[in-house]
Amino acid sequence: MVERRKPIKVDEAIIRVMEYAEAGSVQHVPIEESYGHFLGEDLVADHPVPPFDRSPYDGFAIRSTDTATAASNNPVLVEVIGEIGAGSLFEQPVGRMQAVRIMTGAQIPETCDAVVMFESVKEMDVDGKKMIRVKRRFKAGDNVSFTGEDTNQGEILAYKGTSINPGIVALLATFGYKNVPVSKKPKVGIIATGSELLEVDQEIQPGKIRNSNAYMVYAQVERAGGEPVYFGQFSDDFETCFEQVTDTLEKVDILITTGGVSVGDYDYLPDIYEKMNANVLFNKVGMRPGSVTTVAEKEGKLLFGLSGNPSACYVGFELFTRPIIRTFLHASRPISKKEIAILGADFPKPNPFDRFVRGSLSYTHGKLVATPVGLDKSSVVSSLGEANILIVLPSGTRGYKQGMEVSVILLEDQEGATLEAVVDKEGMKKGSMSHG
Amino acid sequence: MVERRKPIKVDEAIIRVMEYAEAGSVQHVPIEESYGHFLGEDLVADHPVPPFDRSPYDGFAIRSTDTATAASNNPVLVEVIGEIGAGSLFEQPVGRMQAVRIMTGAQIPETCDAVVMFESVKEMDVDGKKMIRVKRRFKAGDNVSFTGEDTNQGEILAYKGTSINPGIVALLATFGYKNVPVSKKPKVGIIATGSELLEVDQEIQPGKIRNSNAYMVYAQVERAGGEPVYFGQFSDDFETCFEQVTDTLEKVDILITTGGVSVGDYDYLPDIYEKMNANVLFNKVGMRPGSVTTVAEKEGKLLFGLSGNPSACYVGFELFTRPIIRTFLHASRPISKKEIAILGADFPKPNPFDRFVRGSLSYTHGKLVATPVGLDKSSVVSSLGEANILIVLPSGTRGYKQGMEVSVILLEDQEGATLEAVVDKEGMKKGSMSHG
Repeated sequence: MVERRKPIKVDEAIIRVMEYAEAGSVQHVPIEESYGHFLGEDLVADHPVPPFDRSPYDGFAIRSTDTATAASNNPVLVEVIGEIGAGSLFEQPVGRMQAVRIMTGAQIPETCDAVVMFESVKEMDVDGKKMIRVKRRFKAGDNVSFTGEDTNQGEILAYKGTSINPGIVALLATFGYKNVPVSKKPKVGIIATGSELLEVDQEIQPGKIRNSNAYMVYAQVERAGGEPVYFGQFSDDFETCFEQVTDTLEKVDILITTGGVSVGDYDYLPDIYEKMNANVLFNKVGMRPGSVTTVAEKEGKLLFGLSGNPSACYVGFELFTRPIIRTFLHASRPISKKEIAILGADFPKPNPFDRFVRGSLSYTHGKLVATPVGLDKSSVVSSLGEANILIVLPSGTRGYKQGMEVSVILLEDQEGATLEAVVDKEGMKKGSMSHG
Repeated sequence: MVERRKPIKVDEAIIRVMEYAEAGSVQHVPIEESYGHFLGEDLVADHPVPPFDRSPYDGFAIRSTDTATAASNNPVLVEVIGEIGAGSLFEQPVGRMQAVRIMTGAQIPETCDAVVMFESVKEMDVDGKKMIRVKRRFKAGDNVSFTGEDTNQGEILAYKGTSINPGIVALLATFGYKNVPVSKKPKVGIIATGSELLEVDQEIQPGKIRNSNAYMVYAQVERAGGEPVYFGQFSDDFETCFEQVTDTLEKVDILITTGGVSVGDYDYLPDIYEKMNANVLFNKVGMRPGSVTTVAEKEGKLLFGLSGNPSACYVGFELFTRPIIRTFLHASRPISKKEIAILGADFPKPNPFDRFVRGSLSYTHGKLVATPVGLDKSSVVSSLGEANILIVLPSGTRGYKQGMEVSVILLEDQEGATLEAVVDKEGMKKGSMSHG
């Protein structure tokens, strides 16, 4: 008989899952390996920037008082008594009507307080002395980058959980992080089930398809910031599969199964969860695709029973698993960002359920345009390569027309959003009530 | 004396560099390691999708002719003679007024031509036989996913040079790519020069700063898809440095130096290029920051002399080096995508040169908003972590106001653009004329 399950709202499902979200531990990696990791601690300035008063240009460091009377019809001559390359210091005193040639980034000599750019003066030789002719007045501080004007010592420049991009790497180097505290990536186990599945290197056989979901989810885990571990295809035998699932759960932080949880006779994953004494958070969600997504919890670890249909599996991962991985990585905004876009094509399908359509985001003269990729049948994979958003089409209407405003979930975004910012407020309330 | 260099336009500089862009070789990696690589060959369907006529739902496979007279006031009874799980076949003939229970994804039995969903029928037991009651007429093909309806055998589903995302991985698995042809990543050597530089683990010293550019560029190379190799800080001695640069160039596909190419007395990289007999494509670009960017070519290999200033170095890499890396990876759209956005804050600086301001892209009700991050002095690094775009502010105006339309270059985008789509057509013409 068909098992009846009671669907819950997507937002409520996210809220239920997020109640078990936990941050992981912190480890250190050499700065060269830090790109693509997530900060495990706040990034703090160990010194002010600039670390000393310095010249932002190539020019001459001067004493501004020497130019008090300078004007284009009354130039003053200042003697150049030396030069400072970047990284070196000029330690002898610079006296009245004296200047020092200075390179970009070099420290301003103690008695100087302004810099004249090369382009603003004429250099000349007077009686064997190097001189510059200054034709206007300079004030103290002109063309000086002051100590700490960009960053104070102790300032937090990026928060833990931030994805480490090239700019963050520059900050890490500047502030002496030879070894970088990064969030340990959660180990995410992947199990494929389903007697229709061939392995990727098997020839196509009648009635069967190659296992694509496991590899797809493997890459989704990597994109989310986790460390995927593929445990292969599991047995269709209940007892064997039960052993395999419980053994695997010991070895990972998060466990994903794909397939075998379609409504129907061959699905025994719910029984496995029951036999494990796992706490099933939900086993049906009011959405398409992915309605038969099950999430359970066992001693604080989450088990994601994703659908065997490629797009249902894809959507289920992004909505429910990704925020758990990001929280493990210490992100304060673990949920994928939601934005408004213009629908780039008709989506005429009737829509009795909230629908998440894989789409491609483009821009037309500064506006976001969301275009569904392919037919978006839940069994279709050929359009998945172009997908970088999920287009959210709420239930209750008779299809959507090109040009309408829709919400989109950004799949490649690193910034993220808080749970509060994304889910429906009613859903939040219901979510906490259901646990109250 | 200050060396005078003749600046060229940014677009012309890009065109000159791209004349030396070359695609690299192809290697194979296991599918599990393919995420984050780039396709080295077109991805081709080795079989149609679906590979056979299959059921998109759980239901009953029927012969549509049996329902010709069915209506809500005239239900027909059909006998269920068996069932088909996904991956298995039902090989006995299905006769008149017979049906087979079928799971999502399973192959339709030969004599059936439609599927009735579970929800649409009533199951019943009649004289010990399993029957279903069908209350409407079905046409041949109803609820059938036909062979090849999504993808034909031989179809190209993604082109070489495409960044491998989770959707592409799903395709690779579906079409049997146990080992994936990927573009070999170019080996990009990085050399830091500059007597002001401390290594990342050294304590701050008067007049000196830690070397952040080398690590930043290291991560930029990774983001672009290259394989960075850091060769450390090079000598300030001309002869030693000359040897080091020429030796290093032998070991890499592309060589980047950062620092030591500021206008001023201490810059001998131009002399090194000359002594190497390298072909200097340009040594000054009409832009800020990054005006003193030099690119040279030696026996087909490109040497990028990027500025020692962090943001100049950052911008120089993204404008000139990234497209070379992407071309090496077989991308047909190697240039970073340019879009229109609304400026999110005033940028009051006078602007005698084309300016590339690091910015952060956000969205306000479906519109792109580009906000400069930090002060964007070329020595400032603290805002770099938030940068995901370069805001293009052309010369010739007196600063920009919030709300104005500006062009932005997307730094995290994977799709890219062609050279023709991005550069100024005049620049293209000049570029080819200068070589004509």
